[in-house]
Amino acid sequence: MSAMSSWDLMAGAAGQRPQLSGRPASNTRILVLGAGLSGLVAAYELGKLGYDCRVLEARDRVGGLEWAVQRGSTHTEVGGERQVCGFDEGQYVNVGPWRIPYSHEGVLGYCRELGVPLQVFINEAENSYFYFQGAAAGPLANRRVRMREVRADLTGHINELLLKAMDQHALDQLLTAEDQERLKTFLVREGYLDSSTHAYKAFENRGEGDPYDLVALLQGGFGNRLRSVPAVEGTAAAPMFQPIGGMDQISKGFQRTMGAERITLNAEVQSVHQDDRGVKVVYRDTRTGKTTEVPADYVIVSMPLTIVSGLDINLSDDLMQAVKDVTYSNSAKIGLAMKRRFWEEDDHIFGGHLYSDLPIGEFSYPSCDYFTRKGVLLGLYSNGPIGNLIDQPIAERIEYVLTYASKVHPQIRTEFESGYAVFWKKVPYSLGGYASGRNVARRQRLSQVDNRIVIGSAATTPRSAPDWQEGAVAAGWQALESIHARAMRG
Amino acid sequence: MSAMSSWDLMAGAAGQRPQLSGRPASNTRILVLGAGLSGLVAAYELGKLGYDCRVLEARDRVGGLEWAVQRGSTHTEVGGERQVCGFDEGQYVNVGPWRIPYSHEGVLGYCRELGVPLQVFINEAENSYFYFQGAAAGPLANRRVRMREVRADLTGHINELLLKAMDQHALDQLLTAEDQERLKTFLVREGYLDSSTHAYKAFENRGEGDPYDLVALLQGGFGNRLRSVPAVEGTAAAPMFQPIGGMDQISKGFQRTMGAERITLNAEVQSVHQDDRGVKVVYRDTRTGKTTEVPADYVIVSMPLTIVSGLDINLSDDLMQAVKDVTYSNSAKIGLAMKRRFWEEDDHIFGGHLYSDLPIGEFSYPSCDYFTRKGVLLGLYSNGPIGNLIDQPIAERIEYVLTYASKVHPQIRTEFESGYAVFWKKVPYSLGGYASGRNVARRQRLSQVDNRIVIGSAATTPRSAPDWQEGAVAAGWQALESIHARAMRG
Repeated sequence: MSAMSSWDLMAGAAGQRPQLSGRPASNTRILVLGAGLSGLVAAYELGKLGYDCRVLEARDRVGGLEWAVQRGSTHTEVGGERQVCGFDEGQYVNVGPWRIPYSHEGVLGYCRELGVPLQVFINEAENSYFYFQGAAAGPLANRRVRMREVRADLTGHINELLLKAMDQHALDQLLTAEDQERLKTFLVREGYLDSSTHAYKAFENRGEGDPYDLVALLQGGFGNRLRSVPAVEGTAAAPMFQPIGGMDQISKGFQRTMGAERITLNAEVQSVHQDDRGVKVVYRDTRTGKTTEVPADYVIVSMPLTIVSGLDINLSDDLMQAVKDVTYSNSAKIGLAMKRRFWEEDDHIFGGHLYSDLPIGEFSYPSCDYFTRKGVLLGLYSNGPIGNLIDQPIAERIEYVLTYASKVHPQIRTEFESGYAVFWKKVPYSLGGYASGRNVARRQRLSQVDNRIVIGSAATTPRSAPDWQEGAVAAGWQALESIHARAMRG
Repeated sequence: MSAMSSWDLMAGAAGQRPQLSGRPASNTRILVLGAGLSGLVAAYELGKLGYDCRVLEARDRVGGLEWAVQRGSTHTEVGGERQVCGFDEGQYVNVGPWRIPYSHEGVLGYCRELGVPLQVFINEAENSYFYFQGAAAGPLANRRVRMREVRADLTGHINELLLKAMDQHALDQLLTAEDQERLKTFLVREGYLDSSTHAYKAFENRGEGDPYDLVALLQGGFGNRLRSVPAVEGTAAAPMFQPIGGMDQISKGFQRTMGAERITLNAEVQSVHQDDRGVKVVYRDTRTGKTTEVPADYVIVSMPLTIVSGLDINLSDDLMQAVKDVTYSNSAKIGLAMKRRFWEEDDHIFGGHLYSDLPIGEFSYPSCDYFTRKGVLLGLYSNGPIGNLIDQPIAERIEYVLTYASKVHPQIRTEFESGYAVFWKKVPYSLGGYASGRNVARRQRLSQVDNRIVIGSAATTPRSAPDWQEGAVAAGWQALESIHARAMRG
């Protein structure tokens, strides 16, 4: 994630929809292949501009990576194992994107325009636990320690140390006596120090128990997560949002607004052939097996490049080579439905994450439906390989997560109801999470119009845009701008 | 507020509903006077226990202080000025209680039981502004400064100072060389210091602009709001919640669950006369003027003591004296409906408060309906007198708030649509906010059963409970426990 932050800071600059001039000739047909976020954005805007725009989508749902798995959700992995989600009605887990920083004006602007209600996604919760095993040394290794306690104790100890240094006149060359008094007042108050002795000791707002030792806290490795202001996504971090009811409410908002007839589901693209007069796309209905040829003037390919690379499509050789050069992440998420929200009831944790070095990546608590009975934990979120986990039967992957998570939450065994694992490398029509790396030259090449076809999936996100869904929006904008310019040239 | 924190920490202990043994004789009639939260809790629980329980409420709505003012809401102040709320449909402001700390298990337990959906109330937002005029000195007086910037800059400067002190060996007696290295690593990372020079300088996550000077920040008085862990409500602070759609969704949940027929609205109590055989309550229908006498075996008085003190009720003299000795707060709130959520669009503020010394108390941003078009600001929240504001015509009170708020948010003038002011001292059937002070002996006296009557409003909240709505729940529990014990004795 940290590698993203310099990109993400540029989010503001990318938050502008393209201002397109010129109107298309009537009946100019554009086919968008793939109803993920980038494809939907392109199709929606082109439709508004007057194009005869239609989307083909291989799955039986819109959204692509935007997927809130819920009761009845199903997919069959490459390799053959099939899951059907058995969560209770109303329970869900976002297995693709799950949080929207407030600065992602592209995505959020569409939420507003399409009437998608948002709620706060809690990305940092003071009651969260730290739990470090291998990475930690000292007495706090393999122990649950609250973020609140870590923050209180580190601040308290450090402020006390600085006050001691001031008593030794260590700052006399740097600050006047008056300013040192001001600083002392601040340090005592901020760190809840004893006002007369300036010692740090247990205090009510920290919670029960004695403070942890400074050295133990530093050894424990907890400090890495504590920064003066949030580091993930830079200034874009807090607050974050999520659509109420699941991330794919955004895609469904596009579908509803564009009209369902504009999007053909269960349409697996077989071939894309262009010549100087147009493009012919053949798709197969995945339910009936019937193939259909659709003519278009232009095509935006908003499918993952993992799929494009194996497609019968006549792109120029160097563009196809650029497509094939892109690798995709091993992103995976596992949702764990629980009979009882024990993290709320027993641990007073409401949203946020577990900070651990357990080999389950991110483990997170739902930012919705607080104080209700059941809930779905995000048991694993990883963007890289976790041993050979992806090769295990799904039940064993879930068992793996339960085993590690129960070190922090022993209740998870008895409260577990059912799980659902999405390893995007094995999800048909995805075969990966997001395009790895941000090779600028390659992205520029990928985004160039190839006669009548342009690639518009998130792998082409321009340099000025962040990743996340905002990048998919920016990629959609870039593609529609390019194809509109192409159409205007005729 | 700060005076409350030691009470509030006891919230956990008070979070238990009374376990009542014994069943009432059939047809034991209990009248509860007042459908505020304490009265509703008592009536609901007594009904479950088998009492024939009924509530009389003078207003045309349940909830008492729990009031989400919205389109059509109306009240006529003592003094005669009438308001009718002209907010757009769906817009509202909580003019009574507005936030529920996660530890308030009494209130939250009822939300769960009654099916009242909750959302996060953002009580601290990094993008919030500080604005100090009179209280501040130095170059940052009368300037908008972000909490994020203050936090980043204070931490950065302080960490840099401690590193300098360590370079002067000020901590050599306190920490080993190895531990000092660990500490240095933490300080550099936490404070975003330059890793080689250990200097604090501008960095991306802080936002645009150069850091503020340490002394300027300390002079500006911003430090008071920055503590290692939240101080308001102690460990109970984060996160906080609010019912979706307005705080009175809780009262409406009781009303719905108990059955509307259990609660008589527009029933202004005229007299309460008890003798050894029972209690006779006379109420007047505020719409028709008709008076009705209702017999009961026992009565719980859950009206504010401001009302009880003027009531024709035969309590023993010393109890009535205790009632009259209680004074009530000057609590007031003003909601300001805005045509545009400029604080979100222009300032990227989502929930939370303005931290200022402007004479408008708390000024806050809505924690709901983010990224929609309109919104209602809380322009003023105060629990004490603000000059003679309460004596001004309502339009002038609103004008007063707009004048001060425009120092921080100049857009407020052009975006202002309409306001609604609730000064509880002038609200009929309230005549004040909450009972001031927590005189333990007086509260104990107030809570004792007086033959067949017990007082059960929030003014009797037991010492073990916090204030806020949780205190009203605890008062209701205490009253129903007392009256049940009384009924069991017969």
